Amino acid sequence: MEIKFCSNCGGNMKQGIPHGDDHMRAICTQCGFIHYLNPKVVVGCIPQWGDKILMCKRNIEPGKGKWTLPAGYLENGETMEAGAARETLEETRGMVNITGPCRLFNIPHVNQIYMMFRAELTSREFGPTPESTHVQLFQKEEIPWDNIAFSVIHKTLKDFFSEKHRGSHSFEIKTMEAPLPHG
Amino acid sequence: MEIKFCSNCGGNMKQGIPHGDDHMRAICTQCGFIHYLNPKVVVGCIPQWGDKILMCKRNIEPGKGKWTLPAGYLENGETMEAGAARETLEETRGMVNITGPCRLFNIPHVNQIYMMFRAELTSREFGPTPESTHVQLFQKEEIPWDNIAFSVIHKTLKDFFSEKHRGSHSFEIKTMEAPLPHG
Ligand SMILES: [Zn+2]
Ligand SMILES: [Zn+2]
Repeated sequence: MEIKFCSNCGGNMKQGIPHGDDHMRAICTQCGFIHYLNPKVVVGCIPQWGDKILMCKRNIEPGKGKWTLPAGYLENGETMEAGAARETLEETRGMVNITGPCRLFNIPHVNQIYMMFRAELTSREFGPTPESTHVQLFQKEEIPWDNIAFSVIHKTLKDFFSEKHRGSHSFEIKTMEAPLPHG
Repeated sequence: MEIKFCSNCGGNMKQGIPHGDDHMRAICTQCGFIHYLNPKVVVGCIPQWGDKILMCKRNIEPGKGKWTLPAGYLENGETMEAGAARETLEETRGMVNITGPCRLFNIPHVNQIYMMFRAELTSREFGPTPESTHVQLFQKEEIPWDNIAFSVIHKTLKDFFSEKHRGSHSFEIKTMEAPLPHG
């Protein structure tokens, strides 16, 4: 998002390095207000029901028609765990208890931090929502591995199932690199 | 930060719930642009040198004159580990290797996520900076426990030293509640 006008006074912006700073910022030419752009936090979870996990088929871009885990932007005033549960409810109508941290991803090329939790559905109630055309439980072998919306979700699921197979869960931080341009 | 003018067109803003959303947002009355405000990520570390840790005395508000660990806002395009190392260099002139995650804090009342790593200084070189009047190595008993700038830093240090005493480090997520008003 480019900042063309000052959100404080409506004045025109210029690019510059503020005194004592070392990054280029958008600075208001009129009131001097400095606008900072920072990474956003995405929170989500792997909702478990027995040996199955809940996934949703996206009804919105990006990744429309592909499968994913419930996840979305953390809101002001919210804990990461509450945000992950809220997104799960919004996207799957499923209620979860967050049971622990699973994977944290740096995705610097899109200015995101992605926090994925392990979770347990509190009941077998779920279903389609405005954001998801289908909401479905899958065993590991049933997951549509070739039709997953985001590489960060693919990686989360692969790691989750290999840890489950091994019999213990861990927390790790990973960095996702920018995909290579198609050639 | 209140959004008074649209950063896209300079128009006046109104508060409302966009279609398909469930939170109040600042919406432009002129071009319809929706402005989202999201939590910011703070990254920092506990720089270790033998059995000592490096702390800095703040030269800027908030907490001017009090001691802290190096930490600051994650920048766009940066991994959390790189951000924590950069903040350490900026605030202490010390170079660190990030060795692992320590504590992650939800601080919903100030819309922050605070990620603290364990780290090791790569040399004994460090010193004051524009942001820190003093930069100093402390053994556990020497830490100015009663003069620490932020409760999240106090908690990180307490947890770090009790885990060190126990002989193994873990990663945990905690939530810091708003401080009670002075009465
Ligand atoms: Zn301005
Ligand atoms: Zn506008």
